[in-house]
Amino acid sequence: MSLVPLRDDLVPFLKSYLPSNEEQRPGLKPFVTLTYAQSMDSRISKGKGVRTVISHLETKTMTHYLRFHHDGILIGVGTALADDPGLNCKWSPVDKIADMQCSPRPIILDPQCKWRYEGSKLQELAAQNLGKPPVVVVNKLPAWTTKAKAVTYVEAPVGPDGKFDWLPLFLLLKRQFQLNSIMVEGGAVVINELLSRPDIVDSIIVTIGAKYLGIQGVEVSPPAGEIEMDDVAWWKGSKDAVVAARLHRT
Amino acid sequence: MSLVPLRDDLVPFLKSYLPSNEEQRPGLKPFVTLTYAQSMDSRISKGKGVRTVISHLETKTMTHYLRFHHDGILIGVGTALADDPGLNCKWSPVDKIADMQCSPRPIILDPQCKWRYEGSKLQELAAQNLGKPPVVVVNKLPAWTTKAKAVTYVEAPVGPDGKFDWLPLFLLLKRQFQLNSIMVEGGAVVINELLSRPDIVDSIIVTIGAKYLGIQGVEVSPPAGEIEMDDVAWWKGSKDAVVAARLHRT
Repeated sequence: MSLVPLRDDLVPFLKSYLPSNEEQRPGLKPFVTLTYAQSMDSRISKGKGVRTVISHLETKTMTHYLRFHHDGILIGVGTALADDPGLNCKWSPVDKIADMQCSPRPIILDPQCKWRYEGSKLQELAAQNLGKPPVVVVNKLPAWTTKAKAVTYVEAPVGPDGKFDWLPLFLLLKRQFQLNSIMVEGGAVVINELLSRPDIVDSIIVTIGAKYLGIQGVEVSPPAGEIEMDDVAWWKGSKDAVVAARLHRT
Repeated sequence: MSLVPLRDDLVPFLKSYLPSNEEQRPGLKPFVTLTYAQSMDSRISKGKGVRTVISHLETKTMTHYLRFHHDGILIGVGTALADDPGLNCKWSPVDKIADMQCSPRPIILDPQCKWRYEGSKLQELAAQNLGKPPVVVVNKLPAWTTKAKAVTYVEAPVGPDGKFDWLPLFLLLKRQFQLNSIMVEGGAVVINELLSRPDIVDSIIVTIGAKYLGIQGVEVSPPAGEIEMDDVAWWKGSKDAVVAARLHRT
């Protein structure tokens, strides 16, 4: 399905929340944008593994505009398995064709190697030159790495709690794959962790859809408690609103 | 504390979501506005009984502007006990003084008669002619009704689940106290129930503060599941946004 046109006023609204050339300096971590769409009641889906339409078509176009401006797009394995997302970019400036070069590199956090490239939407899009093949971040390289040559498996540093250690992970992604900017799209586990990391997240861009999904939905709410936001700006669409901000550093 | 001035653009924004003269027809239920302030993660406070600042001063003024336009203001006993709120109106048009006449009649849903007027903020304000004394809705009239003459206790219809039966309750409030319009300000129990009642709620006006309160906070999310909103409009403030809408009738 093709996208509706990008709303003109989204361009100046998003400008100061997008990555700049600054992030290309070696040694620095990549620019990280945390972005997702939620209902009024902070649900990102109706239930685990249930694809749920929250945002209006005009904010869907915004998501592709954001993808155009990032080198990498990161999701957790839960989202990869539940949604089988494309993660490519269908938006491009008028003088460009939205081909593979416009799309960010997909990054799937898959510690236990549960996700398979074969048969996935990512494989389908890469075969058509409409998206890039992914980097899969695992705890331990699996035996089948050589089978799917398009995929790059990479071992990532894990903390004692069995979770990825975020800062070394982002540094590795930049060093090894030249990803100077990475947007994080979900799911709830990844978002809830990164909301407490103002040292890593440079921008947060959240679409709020005017509906409730109910108590059974998959929720975004940081376990760490209260988080303030700085440089807050709102954009209002015909049905959604978007908030862009930075996480407050204490 | 006095209020900051009302933002001019809130007046046209709110216009079609406020009660009109239509609600004065006998037999009709009062106009009901559901209104509250939430964090990004749909929390209305940091924890049970913890007063939490969510909205900016300009949306606080909006709340008083809404109070000016309603005959009654309803809260649950949990909120009355936790917050000891004033519930009066400090906003008035330039040619009026914000005295008791501008304020809505407080209505406290207190089935088990746990709340006391004596020593409350409501009593303090009524004594200064800055607010009206409340109507307390109970399951069974308490023995002490005659002591606090300013308060009116009223028995309300209760369903087999021990909860108030909403439609008869609102009809009673209109008939007995001439309340043609009632705004409901909380807390979470009351909001979560009324979100599933598009037959009762005429307008919903929600302030979203740009902060997270975390998983331990008191949450708004309807137990009944997905709820769509119609006639959605957004207003953006300097830090908050406000959404005004109607609950979708199926």
